[in-house]
Amino acid sequence: MEIKNELAKRAMIFNTYWQRFLQIKKPTVLYEATHYLPAAGGKRFRPFLTMVSCESVSGDPQKALPFAAGLELMHNFTLVHDDIMDHSSLRRNRPAVHVKFGEPVAILSGDLLFAKSFEAVLGTEVDFSTFKQLQQDFINCVISICEGQQLDMEFEHRKTVTEQEYLEMISKKTAALFELSGKGGGLIGGGNPREVAALQTYGMSLGLAFQIWDDYLDMSSTAKTLGKDIGNDIRNGKKTLIAVHSLTNSTGSQKKLLDDIFGNRGASEHDVMRISDLFRELGSVDYAQQRALQFVDEAKDAISVLKESDAKELLFQLITYTIQREK
Amino acid sequence: MEIKNELAKRAMIFNTYWQRFLQIKKPTVLYEATHYLPAAGGKRFRPFLTMVSCESVSGDPQKALPFAAGLELMHNFTLVHDDIMDHSSLRRNRPAVHVKFGEPVAILSGDLLFAKSFEAVLGTEVDFSTFKQLQQDFINCVISICEGQQLDMEFEHRKTVTEQEYLEMISKKTAALFELSGKGGGLIGGGNPREVAALQTYGMSLGLAFQIWDDYLDMSSTAKTLGKDIGNDIRNGKKTLIAVHSLTNSTGSQKKLLDDIFGNRGASEHDVMRISDLFRELGSVDYAQQRALQFVDEAKDAISVLKESDAKELLFQLITYTIQREK
Repeated sequence: MEIKNELAKRAMIFNTYWQRFLQIKKPTVLYEATHYLPAAGGKRFRPFLTMVSCESVSGDPQKALPFAAGLELMHNFTLVHDDIMDHSSLRRNRPAVHVKFGEPVAILSGDLLFAKSFEAVLGTEVDFSTFKQLQQDFINCVISICEGQQLDMEFEHRKTVTEQEYLEMISKKTAALFELSGKGGGLIGGGNPREVAALQTYGMSLGLAFQIWDDYLDMSSTAKTLGKDIGNDIRNGKKTLIAVHSLTNSTGSQKKLLDDIFGNRGASEHDVMRISDLFRELGSVDYAQQRALQFVDEAKDAISVLKESDAKELLFQLITYTIQREK
Repeated sequence: MEIKNELAKRAMIFNTYWQRFLQIKKPTVLYEATHYLPAAGGKRFRPFLTMVSCESVSGDPQKALPFAAGLELMHNFTLVHDDIMDHSSLRRNRPAVHVKFGEPVAILSGDLLFAKSFEAVLGTEVDFSTFKQLQQDFINCVISICEGQQLDMEFEHRKTVTEQEYLEMISKKTAALFELSGKGGGLIGGGNPREVAALQTYGMSLGLAFQIWDDYLDMSSTAKTLGKDIGNDIRNGKKTLIAVHSLTNSTGSQKKLLDDIFGNRGASEHDVMRISDLFRELGSVDYAQQRALQFVDEAKDAISVLKESDAKELLFQLITYTIQREK
């Protein structure tokens, strides 16, 4: 069992499934815009997590497909709207929806994706009580993501952010969806409360590790080449864990340097490089790596209660994969 | 029983109810923005229709409140996003959400309203099968509204639109929500299929009459004073039923006049007035009035099958109120 093959296999199953919720019909432009981002691919991490979580409690992964589709469509809806709010012009190496179709159609296609995500969830075949639970969790997850995006936007305008605030933000914006992927899969698979709680904790910890590792990869890649994203993140004063750590631990001339350059939209390439070097000198890049690895350990611990199975082994491998993947 | 009093009475009941779904919490700005438009009032037509439809089949209107709240919050979500897409700066005599809070927060607060609308629907206490039906109808209604908004935006860039296309657009953008208010109230009240179908048709016809009457009021008010909206509608080439009728029935110099001025953003006040006069000369204003009255008759016919009750009487009065109200 190789995680890459298993990811690809399930992505294929998922890709033939979700499209039924987004048949192109009239008005064509709206449906093309709605179809555009989910059709652009991605690794289908969240559907994978939902299906394998379902399997890990001896459930039929096919039964988890509608909910998995709901999560993936909802994820795509938030990306479409976030890219408008963040003025991001690229997504999955293609022009963002609002760049290709214009902002009004992009707003509307995000709304339509949101509606379609609920339609997908509605197809989940479980008893009434589990159905209500899944729906309330799904709604709470969307609310979390909205709150997380708002916090992320607010943080860019703030001088400092505590680590606790940062963790709250990414737990809402990113990890809540991983958390629900694990929990939802467990519920649909008929897991007992202890198993469902384990998968929920696993998802949350994996999500936190995933996001911190993302920031870490961005920054550690600067050794070779200073990516455009890092420059933008530094110029926009984006509060990654690395930045949060440096802002907290810098004093004297280092603090002054951060004050001058971090969040300064006019910062030169040279200035950006100085901040990137400073992040390293202050041990912030290493610190972020360690924190990600702590969450990795928490994720591993969480699922130790599950009975042995191929699915459990895949969940372990998914953790390792998360902190190995190159962007 | 006076319809105005009954509307006010139920709006008061509704207003003490819906707020539970939008307690202000952190991040405060996001929740304030989300609360802002629903708190700005409005007549609560749709919740009224839902509650009274429920009563008309001998149901308890209290039981319809969660669904009514879902419909009203969803209505508000679409208004917040529509105002961004349409660059409308005023709503309910206050600055639109995106004007007051900025566009990113407005997009996000619309998304949050959408999520909250589903949360409200989730509180409806009915059996599993009715529950699924209500949810599928609710999702279909959102999808209709998205499609209707897309058509409305596309129509502004088109030279001509047929009456059938216009009716399809407003049936999706406006009347679908009235339709579901009637149908949903009937389903929750335990109405039989014939009653539920009657309330559904009533809602659709009422919604069509409502929207056409809105356009009629806008245009007939020009006799006294040329409102800013009408000027904008003419300059933007907005395809109201009046415009559609004139575009179809004009020939020669009248057609030329429309070609030159209708949809011309630089049109002068004098030019706008000429188009407004032309609409009248071509009988288009009268035609729209007649079409609205036809839908009024259809709405009346639809509910003739309901058993006699105070609620049925209110549904009749609501029709008359719809075509009497001043903007």
